Amino acid sequence: MDYQSHFQSAIEALHAEKRYRVFADLERIAGRFPTALWRHDGKAREITVWCSNDYLGMGQHPDVIAAMTAAVTAMGSGAGGTRNISGTNHPLVELERELADLHGKEAALVFTSGFVSNEASISTIAKLLPDCLILSDELNHASMIEGVRKSGAKKQIFRHNDVAHLEELLKAADPARPKLIVFESVYSMDGDVAPIEKIVELAEYYNAMTYIDEVHAVGMYGPRGGGISERDGIAERIDVIEGTLAKAFGVLGGYITGTRALIDSIRSYAPGFIFTTALPPALAAAATASIRHLKTSQSERDAQQRQAARAKAVFSDAKLPVMPSDTHIVPLLVGDADLCKKASDHLLQRHGIYIQPINYPTVPRGTERLRITPTPLHGDGLIETLKDALVETWQTVGIRFSTEQPQHAERSSAVTSLVVSQAGG
Amino acid sequence: MDYQSHFQSAIEALHAEKRYRVFADLERIAGRFPTALWRHDGKAREITVWCSNDYLGMGQHPDVIAAMTAAVTAMGSGAGGTRNISGTNHPLVELERELADLHGKEAALVFTSGFVSNEASISTIAKLLPDCLILSDELNHASMIEGVRKSGAKKQIFRHNDVAHLEELLKAADPARPKLIVFESVYSMDGDVAPIEKIVELAEYYNAMTYIDEVHAVGMYGPRGGGISERDGIAERIDVIEGTLAKAFGVLGGYITGTRALIDSIRSYAPGFIFTTALPPALAAAATASIRHLKTSQSERDAQQRQAARAKAVFSDAKLPVMPSDTHIVPLLVGDADLCKKASDHLLQRHGIYIQPINYPTVPRGTERLRITPTPLHGDGLIETLKDALVETWQTVGIRFSTEQPQHAERSSAVTSLVVSQAGG
Ligand SMILES: Cc1ncc(COP(=O)(O)O)c(C=O)c1O
Ligand SMILES: Cc1ncc(COP(=O)(O)O)c(C=O)c1O
Repeated sequence: MDYQSHFQSAIEALHAEKRYRVFADLERIAGRFPTALWRHDGKAREITVWCSNDYLGMGQHPDVIAAMTAAVTAMGSGAGGTRNISGTNHPLVELERELADLHGKEAALVFTSGFVSNEASISTIAKLLPDCLILSDELNHASMIEGVRKSGAKKQIFRHNDVAHLEELLKAADPARPKLIVFESVYSMDGDVAPIEKIVELAEYYNAMTYIDEVHAVGMYGPRGGGISERDGIAERIDVIEGTLAKAFGVLGGYITGTRALIDSIRSYAPGFIFTTALPPALAAAATASIRHLKTSQSERDAQQRQAARAKAVFSDAKLPVMPSDTHIVPLLVGDADLCKKASDHLLQRHGIYIQPINYPTVPRGTERLRITPTPLHGDGLIETLKDALVETWQTVGIRFSTEQPQHAERSSAVTSLVVSQAGG
Repeated sequence: MDYQSHFQSAIEALHAEKRYRVFADLERIAGRFPTALWRHDGKAREITVWCSNDYLGMGQHPDVIAAMTAAVTAMGSGAGGTRNISGTNHPLVELERELADLHGKEAALVFTSGFVSNEASISTIAKLLPDCLILSDELNHASMIEGVRKSGAKKQIFRHNDVAHLEELLKAADPARPKLIVFESVYSMDGDVAPIEKIVELAEYYNAMTYIDEVHAVGMYGPRGGGISERDGIAERIDVIEGTLAKAFGVLGGYITGTRALIDSIRSYAPGFIFTTALPPALAAAATASIRHLKTSQSERDAQQRQAARAKAVFSDAKLPVMPSDTHIVPLLVGDADLCKKASDHLLQRHGIYIQPINYPTVPRGTERLRITPTPLHGDGLIETLKDALVETWQTVGIRFSTEQPQHAERSSAVTSLVVSQAGG
């Protein structure tokens, strides 16, 4: 076994498939989001980021930066240990209270990331329940899929957002068997929303637990930023609401909320929670400041929705192939990995606009896309500039405009029934 | 299925076993480590932390705090996306260069934690190698065990630090089969050190890859803080060196270093790396400042060793049952979960000293202990105070002093051959 050349060929396989990824070296400029410095070939150039998941620009909010700076100065840079080994810092305790309140739940538990929160929580819940059956949406995020796998529990995949299919599976299962339905509220690559109320009704009827990932909704939906489940007034009927502190809240970390007994069980049994250093006090303090701000301020949410709607309208008018989306996410269909990469490179080099290509395995093959995330900081002028740059790029690179194809880009979810894609990276 | 009462009984089981954990709510005070505020029953009290994994006190180092504050102010609180989705920030790129240099490797990759770095890297390496056989030390950390499990590869456990047993297993395996040996340098609950050179020799002879976890050694051993592998001049013969930014470096995050091809493979294939938000620029900048400081400053390492040696000597003289340890870690044997918890509670309430109980599953049953980690900031006066408090506690709670038992506390590793314990939480 020649290990070195084995890894070499694993890399070459990605090149051959045109899905080798190069990460842009960016330096965001607080106070001037979405502007960033792009370092490349020994030069630094100012560019505009159009694909950030810091959806509301909270990462540069003065209250958030002030809270983080104050906590670093007062308490130091790290937590210094696992939660059990002196790592439970006071700002983290406060953050967990804030999160429980945000979702109207008894308790919350913070993890080092949304990924870890999903992997650790789903696997632990399913392991604690005897012979648990997991029902999982086919387009669930990689972190949920890892949680399902790690549980070792039997899983059944239901077609994306297809409640009839979900009911079929529930009906066929032994009524006495513990069941866990795992799904997302906003699917981040398509921007569509789950039929939460119908899923919850089924769960109640068939006595299943519900676990919802609101990673792409917290901060952005609901009158206090509690996500789609808050907006739809259904949070209290969901057993576990999971979210991240790293997207709309602009920091780092993930969490779950639920009943005290459930949270305490995961706290006590999940290796991914127990055996790792706690989130630093400065990150916890920053996240709390961000959540508190968004609990009372509606202006960021309104501005985000307005700019997202405007971008969709402007692009559609220019015959750019906007994929249908019910949310703040604006995907443009390219449909080919190589073209998608070329469009992204061209936008960056020619126009100083950064939108990374979204290729397989993040989305199914044939649905490669540019995924645009307008924030409150992307003003109308920037939208016009982007539209012009996209049109030029579409022409230069040779991508189809929307008149040259069926009325609507087919939903990737429909295209790929039963392909379990991994979104978000 | 009554889910709620099911989780309730999972918690009650822990209470019954006396291993239900309560986290102390601490607020460390930068500039005054190891002093912290302990919040309890609505009051805040100043206490001394004696079990921090911020081993050198770098979490309050002025350079580290300054770097973190400067980066938050300039670049904001979060990364804003996964590494691929505009989350690759410039300080993170610099940090990876710094880490590759620290261990003399071609490349490095940063993860959100040491836990994730182990889980993602071990599983991905073993998945990429066809029919890989993993050879794993029986006392490996939970995060390594999760990585081994997740790989789905066949694993064989060798007795702790037992190179003869390891050789037996290597000899018995098909020579053509890819093999990965995973082990730690410093085992954090006992403070013993792996026979690294012998393991590397075996790996070379039997053509196995080596993966070492230096989480409890980086920053603290070797002339530049490159860990035991640097101290012993053997780093270049090890394939993968893994570490954390959250212990001696005082921040948060984990990493691996190795050849460019290997690092690029894990970067490209590991879901736990790909599908999660990148480390914030402020944490990366703080970690880089910490690593750079410890690359040239020996004084923290010297002071830590001096205070650890002094603590061991002072405790031994007082007949406190110091377990044998070759490193900066000072475990005191209690040998019973209930007594261990009582001792910890008594130390905190009566003496304002925080040392959390280390019980099963972090260590094997029967080897429950207090694990003390002297830092450069624990001066001789604090060691005296601690010794007096421990003696009083040992008497009050009724724990055996070392004259009342065999000369040396038995090594937990010997006690528990084949029990795969999970250390570190
Ligand atoms: C649906 C979903 N869940 C979870 C995550 C992971 O969250 P985090 O970035 O905090 O790890 C992501 C993306 O990163 C995601 O898209
Ligand atoms: C040996 C070992 N490896 C890895 C880890 C995980 O590192 P981190 O705290 O950065 O997740 C720990 C403890 O936390 C550990 O003890």
